[in-house]
Amino acid sequence: MSTYSLAIHGGAGTIRRSEMTDAQEQGHRTALEQALCAGERVLASGGSATAAVEAAVVSLEDCEYFNAGRGAVFTHDGRHEMDASIMCGATLNAGAVAMVEGVKNPVALSRLVMERSAHVFLCGAGAQDFARDMDVPFEGPDYFFSAFRYQQLEKARAQNRVQLDHSDKFGTVGAVALDLQGNLAAATSTGGLTNKRYGRVGDSSVIGAGTYANNGTCAVSCTGYGEYFLRSVVAYDVSCMMEYKGLSLQEATDRIINHKQVAIGGDGGLIAVDRNGSIALPFNSTGMYRGWVQKGSEARVAIYKNDR
Amino acid sequence: MSTYSLAIHGGAGTIRRSEMTDAQEQGHRTALEQALCAGERVLASGGSATAAVEAAVVSLEDCEYFNAGRGAVFTHDGRHEMDASIMCGATLNAGAVAMVEGVKNPVALSRLVMERSAHVFLCGAGAQDFARDMDVPFEGPDYFFSAFRYQQLEKARAQNRVQLDHSDKFGTVGAVALDLQGNLAAATSTGGLTNKRYGRVGDSSVIGAGTYANNGTCAVSCTGYGEYFLRSVVAYDVSCMMEYKGLSLQEATDRIINHKQVAIGGDGGLIAVDRNGSIALPFNSTGMYRGWVQKGSEARVAIYKNDR
Repeated sequence: MSTYSLAIHGGAGTIRRSEMTDAQEQGHRTALEQALCAGERVLASGGSATAAVEAAVVSLEDCEYFNAGRGAVFTHDGRHEMDASIMCGATLNAGAVAMVEGVKNPVALSRLVMERSAHVFLCGAGAQDFARDMDVPFEGPDYFFSAFRYQQLEKARAQNRVQLDHSDKFGTVGAVALDLQGNLAAATSTGGLTNKRYGRVGDSSVIGAGTYANNGTCAVSCTGYGEYFLRSVVAYDVSCMMEYKGLSLQEATDRIINHKQVAIGGDGGLIAVDRNGSIALPFNSTGMYRGWVQKGSEARVAIYKNDR
Repeated sequence: MSTYSLAIHGGAGTIRRSEMTDAQEQGHRTALEQALCAGERVLASGGSATAAVEAAVVSLEDCEYFNAGRGAVFTHDGRHEMDASIMCGATLNAGAVAMVEGVKNPVALSRLVMERSAHVFLCGAGAQDFARDMDVPFEGPDYFFSAFRYQQLEKARAQNRVQLDHSDKFGTVGAVALDLQGNLAAATSTGGLTNKRYGRVGDSSVIGAGTYANNGTCAVSCTGYGEYFLRSVVAYDVSCMMEYKGLSLQEATDRIINHKQVAIGGDGGLIAVDRNGSIALPFNSTGMYRGWVQKGSEARVAIYKNDR
């Protein structure tokens, strides 16, 4: 059964067709297609699921449309604090970074934490020291600046509120993959909340909450209201429902996103793939930027409900 | 069924009777008794499990014997970066802080994050800003200084290695409780690793890994090799094995600490209480500083294996 599967997301939330121009919509779709292509290229040539999810997320981080890497939103004091994590389902190794500034690709840094450090989770200036030791590319404020994001900050500051990416859109990107060797991996990356203060960290950098992978069950990357996803340990919950309760990927992810999270007000969604290559892309918001591809079938992207 | 239960730990690891003086051993036992007393006082008077675990952990943080709060170990550059978290099983609310410096009681700060902020997880200087806004007590370097800890740092620096608390002892403190109203709570606090660099964060501040509480299942606080506990999402795993697999608290915690963690080299232990007030205190190391008390029975403390 030699197959591969890849799914990606660019955030879930209140995404309405009526609020997007044709050019904006096409731009998002093209960016999703490019990220799928970057990840599939790795898988099709026999590369690892870990390398594939990294490549797909790097592609999304490099795109200014999504709230991660280059497109990260502004914090309260006009900076960009980014979080990311990655997990390998074969080894159960994991790497995560939180509150890093200036790092071009936080997901690549999280992979270096996994593979080149004795640790799993590095945070803040210390994580940046590690990045410099690893010769990871940094970028200056110009690279991360966008007039659109800055307007979001000014608006949020004026209203004195911490805003999600933009009007209830959860800006996060992620990828999950099964490779030809049967190994699973997951990765997630985010710029957090516009106008955030107090060094707030969401679920994206937390293994078990925003990201989880285990060859025995599934690989999961989440996007949603980070506080609810943290409290519910969402990504590992999918794995536990499969391992301990015997649910399928579809049943487990549906129960968590469309029932458990709905019950507590946890808006958002997730992408997941199991060891057979089945893909689940549930979300309880009006939209989720998403894409998926399996060996032998064409890559697909979608944004709204009933859009596939 | 109106009962209460409380269990505490002061870290697990290689703790040998032969390496401790009688005075040191008695000092640790007295400190554990005082922390149990602080927590039980809350429970006996009808207070909440959340208030009880906070009181017990504050008592342990205030004691220089344990690697948390006052007794926190030194980082590579001679500072003290502390992590803590707390979770309420009735509401599934949670609060956590990582890499905070100078805060007298990180566990009390994590409770304020839970109850007074819109967030779950705050990190670094931002978490300290929040602490100042909340008028939380800070202490200077003198308060956190100990000649014993500084010698540990100098030794670790000389050997150029990141050390656990002290020769494979995992310095963490924690508490779990069931209150008379039937609510569960858990809290954990740590000073991390001697000579640590790169803003390393372990499992103690991560909801699901080091700390978890859910009235439907159990409350758990972990102590051990943080990287393994993070990758295994240990605290939530106990809850999932009970909820999805129907295991008892004893079965679930035994399977995780004495089988799953042993298989991957994850040294350490945990304390847990379920909704009936049953207590589990498994560890796969040579010792774990621990104590427990239930309504109507005497408080007990123990350090080594077969020591109860």
